[in-house]
Amino acid sequence: MLIHDDARAAALQARRPPAAALETVLGALAERFGDRFSRNRSVLDQHGHTRTQIRLEAPDGVVFPRTTAEVAEVVTLCARHRVPVIPYGTGTSLEGHVNAPFGGISIDTSGMNRVLAVHAEDLDCVVEPGVTRKALNLHLRDHGLFFPIDPGADASLGGMAATRASGTSAVRYGTMKDNVLALEIVTPQGDVMQTARRAKKSSAGYDLTRLMVGSEGTLGVITGITLKLSGIPEATAAGVCPFPSVKAACDATILTVQSGIPVARIELLDALQVRACNLYSKLGLPETPMLFVEFTGTPAGVAEQVESFGAIAEELGGGPFDWATRPEDRSRLWQARHDVYWASFTLRPGAKIISTDLCVPISRLADCVSATQADIAATGLVAPIVGHVGDGNFHLGLLFDDADADEMARVDAFLDRLVRRALAMEGTCTGEHGVGQGKAGYLAEEHPPAALAMMRAVKAAIDPLDIMNPGKILPLDG
Amino acid sequence: MLIHDDARAAALQARRPPAAALETVLGALAERFGDRFSRNRSVLDQHGHTRTQIRLEAPDGVVFPRTTAEVAEVVTLCARHRVPVIPYGTGTSLEGHVNAPFGGISIDTSGMNRVLAVHAEDLDCVVEPGVTRKALNLHLRDHGLFFPIDPGADASLGGMAATRASGTSAVRYGTMKDNVLALEIVTPQGDVMQTARRAKKSSAGYDLTRLMVGSEGTLGVITGITLKLSGIPEATAAGVCPFPSVKAACDATILTVQSGIPVARIELLDALQVRACNLYSKLGLPETPMLFVEFTGTPAGVAEQVESFGAIAEELGGGPFDWATRPEDRSRLWQARHDVYWASFTLRPGAKIISTDLCVPISRLADCVSATQADIAATGLVAPIVGHVGDGNFHLGLLFDDADADEMARVDAFLDRLVRRALAMEGTCTGEHGVGQGKAGYLAEEHPPAALAMMRAVKAAIDPLDIMNPGKILPLDG
Repeated sequence: MLIHDDARAAALQARRPPAAALETVLGALAERFGDRFSRNRSVLDQHGHTRTQIRLEAPDGVVFPRTTAEVAEVVTLCARHRVPVIPYGTGTSLEGHVNAPFGGISIDTSGMNRVLAVHAEDLDCVVEPGVTRKALNLHLRDHGLFFPIDPGADASLGGMAATRASGTSAVRYGTMKDNVLALEIVTPQGDVMQTARRAKKSSAGYDLTRLMVGSEGTLGVITGITLKLSGIPEATAAGVCPFPSVKAACDATILTVQSGIPVARIELLDALQVRACNLYSKLGLPETPMLFVEFTGTPAGVAEQVESFGAIAEELGGGPFDWATRPEDRSRLWQARHDVYWASFTLRPGAKIISTDLCVPISRLADCVSATQADIAATGLVAPIVGHVGDGNFHLGLLFDDADADEMARVDAFLDRLVRRALAMEGTCTGEHGVGQGKAGYLAEEHPPAALAMMRAVKAAIDPLDIMNPGKILPLDG
Repeated sequence: MLIHDDARAAALQARRPPAAALETVLGALAERFGDRFSRNRSVLDQHGHTRTQIRLEAPDGVVFPRTTAEVAEVVTLCARHRVPVIPYGTGTSLEGHVNAPFGGISIDTSGMNRVLAVHAEDLDCVVEPGVTRKALNLHLRDHGLFFPIDPGADASLGGMAATRASGTSAVRYGTMKDNVLALEIVTPQGDVMQTARRAKKSSAGYDLTRLMVGSEGTLGVITGITLKLSGIPEATAAGVCPFPSVKAACDATILTVQSGIPVARIELLDALQVRACNLYSKLGLPETPMLFVEFTGTPAGVAEQVESFGAIAEELGGGPFDWATRPEDRSRLWQARHDVYWASFTLRPGAKIISTDLCVPISRLADCVSATQADIAATGLVAPIVGHVGDGNFHLGLLFDDADADEMARVDAFLDRLVRRALAMEGTCTGEHGVGQGKAGYLAEEHPPAALAMMRAVKAAIDPLDIMNPGKILPLDG
């Protein structure tokens, strides 16, 4: 966890741009953008980090551009005066990605919210970065197409690309890295570039698209996204299946994936998380480990998947299966799944929550989750677990009282063990939330020195002035 | 096409390492590796480019390491003396990737051919770079798993990762970028690093894996690969379906993909390519545009796909379908498809062949192929076309007589128009063969100046001495 103390405050202060340079930029932006520029305290605070335990570090100004050219103007201005630039989508990221530790200008892309083109024959579309995934799917519905990546929050597609987001449907459709065909980027020098053509694949040079996906605004501002689309499946079946243990549920997942059943979603909730969902979403489920699953395809294909999965679940002592056959029941089920963040608060009213994520090879998942549950119990914490288990990815909603110093010390130590446990199992410190500020300290433990040095070299080569979302991904003290 | 003239020869000579440095390296390697190091003329020539029109530019020495540590030793030595390093797999690449325009040391990875681990539960495996795709699939068969990427040639997996290869099954399984989980790299400084953990997904920092996939040995030597595996499908159906025109075949492909039919392979052969296959592989097919298709899944799922595709084909005037129901008939069919390179020679015995590839958005494919056929006819060339049409990717086997200067001028002009036509249709100059030397001249046309500058910056940051496969991907004169 980030330590906020006098040393950090001094380090941050030392790296802020000179006051005169900052004032020049703020003045120029006010003049150029009028009421699409703000220094209002509440607007500034809203554009810093507002979730979880990471402390707010607000920007000095927020600009609301409407076009790529305007973004390029802002970045060019900031580059000239070496003022940090922090791209902002919907602010739903969880690791402090939108904080401004050295101050600077937040570029709020919410006004860049047009779907520029839908190429139905090519199964792709071109959108501005402020389009949210729900808005896009509403737009696409008449085409019989949808964009499958679903991180839960109605995040902006620019933000989702920047954090390499994924979510419940990644087991079937992959992550943002698999569903972004090309990006339009404003470089740290203020140039506008396309990372790739609209062809479905290419071997023409370094994969700048994938370099930008997951770069969290540290290599440029995403101003346009060409996305792969999928056809809306003909038939859908979803339901919940209880299991006697986390291990049984994980084993059922492994067998499902191994059998080639093209499961659309497969989500584990531990018993505590089920209790939270029962309290918040009135699901009335037995409080035991549970898989939420969804199958899609042709009607016959779905029936076949359901049957195969049923046999696997039964073999592992799971069931009985509770099917949500009506669309409204399915929506209620997935809404409950997406609301686990809010549901978790019911377990400890008044507490704050840290939502963290980890990912391990699926064969290690049951071990990792079981060991984590034991650690939670031994440490005396409340922390329900929910996982995109088809990918070996799980989340933990850790409820805490930040006024209790003793508890916070236990929370910090627990979180540290949690990450180290995943790393020891060939896993990663974050499967989908990204590094931001919260996980930057673990990057050097996850990656070997040569890889971290390569990341630093790439960052320095592309953003030599270090103005693009500084203090994110790469540890500050490196 | 690459111009080989005195100016180029002089430019290459000027960038060769000093003779003394080279001799030091050659002497040290001879002493260290004994009979696993060679300066034999035929071995050197074999390790330069040996296919298509690109002229052979042989390395000065070839080393045959058996371990990552040995590769690191070679690279460290070469870096100390600024001698170029050219990674070599099976030499099946088509754009001069393994040429040594400035001389240097070819690192032949064929002796690093062990499958280090198969994690069946995680659907992944770890291999050395010299393992070929056929050897891997033989190894995996008993696990009920396979590695789906199939570029035709029995290429090494290191080479396939380096060129971002794909092939016939990419429409279903994606390309190497989608099927490499992590790489072990020897950096240009001789350090050994892992690009990522074995977790199925991660948001922990820049995507070095994808940066290395497709980097063609210019950013480091691939010494280990963690690959995603897939389950061997329960049932398979394959066959050929004639169409009245290229457009009808392309439209059938678009409808198939759009309908969400999870086609395993869908390959277009134009009438001339069918004739070549008839001559070479004795297929006895009607000489008209043809789709070779394959469906996999459960028996019921395959039957359903076959029916859906049949309806689409019929709607577009295609058929009758000729099914290869027995495994040996299917093998014969796909062997014939993979042998198109050799089959093409039957159309003009004694000629040489250029195998080139392009990729456009699928909606433009019929236009692109038809315009190309018209251009072939107008230019008076012989050039059958075969395409991974589900991805908008097609190949052209251009037969030529390099002793005929007039013809060569027409060939050059034609190839230039071919690439520019694809670029004008939002396509790429290479969908899967890579840039190498052959397409380097088009990189600046495909990518905007800022993107090309970013690629150069990344290259300079990671390989500041420019020893890693120099003269590939990025144009020499930049």
